[in-house]
Amino acid sequence: MLVDHLLDRLPAERVQLDPAVLVGYSHDEGEWAEHGTPLVLVRPRSAVEVQVVVRACVEHGVPVVTRGAGTGLSGGANAVDGCVVLSTEAMTAITEINPVERLAVVQAGVVNDDLRAACAEQGLWYPPDPASAPWSTIGGNVATNAGGLCCVKYGVTADYVLGLQVVTGTGELVRLGRRTAKGVAGYNLTGLLVGSEGTLGIVTEVTVKLRPRRPVERTVAGYFASVVDAGHAVTAVGAAGIVPSALELIDRHCLEAVDAWKKMGLAVEADVVLLARCDVPGAAGDDEAEAILDCFERAGATWAVRSTDQAEADALFEARRLAYPALERLGPVLTEDVCVPKAAVPEMLARIEKAAKDHDVLIANIAHAGDGNLHPLLITPPGDDEARARAQQAFHQIIADAIALGGTVTGEHGIGLLKRDGLAAELSPEVMDLHHAVKAALDPHGILNPGKVIGHR
Amino acid sequence: MLVDHLLDRLPAERVQLDPAVLVGYSHDEGEWAEHGTPLVLVRPRSAVEVQVVVRACVEHGVPVVTRGAGTGLSGGANAVDGCVVLSTEAMTAITEINPVERLAVVQAGVVNDDLRAACAEQGLWYPPDPASAPWSTIGGNVATNAGGLCCVKYGVTADYVLGLQVVTGTGELVRLGRRTAKGVAGYNLTGLLVGSEGTLGIVTEVTVKLRPRRPVERTVAGYFASVVDAGHAVTAVGAAGIVPSALELIDRHCLEAVDAWKKMGLAVEADVVLLARCDVPGAAGDDEAEAILDCFERAGATWAVRSTDQAEADALFEARRLAYPALERLGPVLTEDVCVPKAAVPEMLARIEKAAKDHDVLIANIAHAGDGNLHPLLITPPGDDEARARAQQAFHQIIADAIALGGTVTGEHGIGLLKRDGLAAELSPEVMDLHHAVKAALDPHGILNPGKVIGHR
Repeated sequence: MLVDHLLDRLPAERVQLDPAVLVGYSHDEGEWAEHGTPLVLVRPRSAVEVQVVVRACVEHGVPVVTRGAGTGLSGGANAVDGCVVLSTEAMTAITEINPVERLAVVQAGVVNDDLRAACAEQGLWYPPDPASAPWSTIGGNVATNAGGLCCVKYGVTADYVLGLQVVTGTGELVRLGRRTAKGVAGYNLTGLLVGSEGTLGIVTEVTVKLRPRRPVERTVAGYFASVVDAGHAVTAVGAAGIVPSALELIDRHCLEAVDAWKKMGLAVEADVVLLARCDVPGAAGDDEAEAILDCFERAGATWAVRSTDQAEADALFEARRLAYPALERLGPVLTEDVCVPKAAVPEMLARIEKAAKDHDVLIANIAHAGDGNLHPLLITPPGDDEARARAQQAFHQIIADAIALGGTVTGEHGIGLLKRDGLAAELSPEVMDLHHAVKAALDPHGILNPGKVIGHR
Repeated sequence: MLVDHLLDRLPAERVQLDPAVLVGYSHDEGEWAEHGTPLVLVRPRSAVEVQVVVRACVEHGVPVVTRGAGTGLSGGANAVDGCVVLSTEAMTAITEINPVERLAVVQAGVVNDDLRAACAEQGLWYPPDPASAPWSTIGGNVATNAGGLCCVKYGVTADYVLGLQVVTGTGELVRLGRRTAKGVAGYNLTGLLVGSEGTLGIVTEVTVKLRPRRPVERTVAGYFASVVDAGHAVTAVGAAGIVPSALELIDRHCLEAVDAWKKMGLAVEADVVLLARCDVPGAAGDDEAEAILDCFERAGATWAVRSTDQAEADALFEARRLAYPALERLGPVLTEDVCVPKAAVPEMLARIEKAAKDHDVLIANIAHAGDGNLHPLLITPPGDDEARARAQQAFHQIIADAIALGGTVTGEHGIGLLKRDGLAAELSPEVMDLHHAVKAALDPHGILNPGKVIGHR
């Protein structure tokens, strides 16, 4: 009946019922998060078509689960039984790139790297750069408030969203936010929608702030004998008042996995590598690079260098980006995303090592270390249920440790399904009540990605 | 009865009933916004005391209007009849300044400049710098999402708020947000509270992000024969991909008023002065200053110079900060706060001139020009009701023009009472519905600063 309603109002090719196709749209990359079987997949091409879908869902009381590229890592885009999966993949128009106002307007399904490339052509830069940037969409980035490598200096997706076009939980098509540099007219509903994982509204178009093209970056690499030593180097950079344009950690497991896959000839003589970048122009940038080098050396780096070989530096950052898919080749990867205060990074890395030992799980580490945002990657042999159970115990231990150290359960991947218990552990019951009140206010029919983030009540 | 309740639970000196004192707490600096007569003034010293007040208000169904220093310009802190006025002025503890995490934790009543001074002692910088910084409080800055001079490069208050301690509309004392560099655990309620003008919760403590101390700034000054020429210079700076650390406009009326008051010996041979600053270190900063100078000259500056005299440059910026109080000495000042796209700055300045002519009103101009955030100041002779009526017409015309040019009715002062009609004109009815839904969700008893921002329904 819902399907007939949709077929009446949308071109037939927008509506997909083939179960073989639906399977591929029933979950994201959030390993081990449960998912249901969708009723139908809809791939609208415009905001008005999205509105048609939501109005049909309101009328028929059917849930709608929105997804971009499905690269999420928390199950936030996983189907619930009998839902409409709404994919924004066909909404790929870059409507405007405006150099004077330094903003861009894009449909939700535009791929992050495509926007970045289009901006670069005009001497502009869209900073948010999640490792998924070659595949993930701006709409998905907005839904999860995605971060990335440049956040340590340039902030996260939320810092770049000026305005949104949204279909609300009651099926209204509205514009939130602005196009001006500043604006405080009314409540910050734009900011509320960012990171709400499709539970408060469906984003159809995004207006983002841009920056001028940035200066060339210098790269500093340091090798360390332990993740804890590397953690001390990270704390030292923060304490020295330095704001690098990237500060990434990647351990031997990741480098080896990338090298085995891509044959990049990466030197893997260290247990951990820290990669810093610095984009201050001129002599001041040279000074900053030297200061970072000094922090690395004083924290006990076994080898540290300011790279003069751009190709080598790029290869190391490429390895960082490829770490996740490279490890996935070894078996199912459960990705952690805790974020702790900078001073707690060494202790948190030590606790992750302990969790690996306590539960006999292989844990590789990549991290946006300068933000204190750690991504321990829990890898289990395919089909090994016992290893999986142990990995889940380690996962919960890491979450508890992050909260104990004053951190948060998710720095940039979102709550989805996997972190719902973590959310309830991190927030007070009174704050959870506020969440439910906001959810009920903006999704009065309870159709928007139900069960995600705050769960059912 | 409410008063007895408060006196039972709070030290007597927190509670003030003297009508002569209450008068001074019954309104902010929002000229011509109506205000009522409060029942009582409470000056709590702790979050728990704020909670006592709100719980009493819930129980007795009495509205509570929160204020910091009362420097607001939209009537957002104006009393409603029979309300409790809750002043945060006694909540002045700077609880923590943390150089490693680069954050500070302060009670809501800490004065902006006091926080900035305390940060500077540790080599840190809290950027938001509203012209009211010597008087206004961080809690008030949060309530209005205050801007300032540095926003053109460094953003507004919202960009620096990591976490809040809040008393909710149901009297719960909660913590929102985080202390980590990143975090996406749950909805961005922190961001929703910022700029909500005391209508969604009462902020008792703020955790703000800090930056390292910034490099020394260069100053470029340009004199122009008309505000429209100056507007073209502003657009040229944006189009050149330059991000100055300040780009301020100040017209002859303001300079003369400041000079008459402070005898600063300001040269007033120009109709309009543009003041730019640039804090990129080293030779790149010199290049940027030269590029700004070039934009000024090509836009028709009658005189432009890169200042080599720091004292002179500081005097010009001090004049900018003093413009508002200096003009107030001439008569009641109605302050506009529209913000338009950068490309529309010349046209908006022309329309402001037209509004002054059309309605025979003296309009002086200061502007955070680099943001497109204009502050036309409508000045009327004391006691001249006809002039006042004409000024109000000009005020409405300017608002309508800003909306027509793709701008917003308020860049940084907030809606309060004065811009409620403007808000309804700027937002669609569907978006106003969302505002009312959020308000009802977070203030179910309707006691938090009722009537402000979205009005009654």
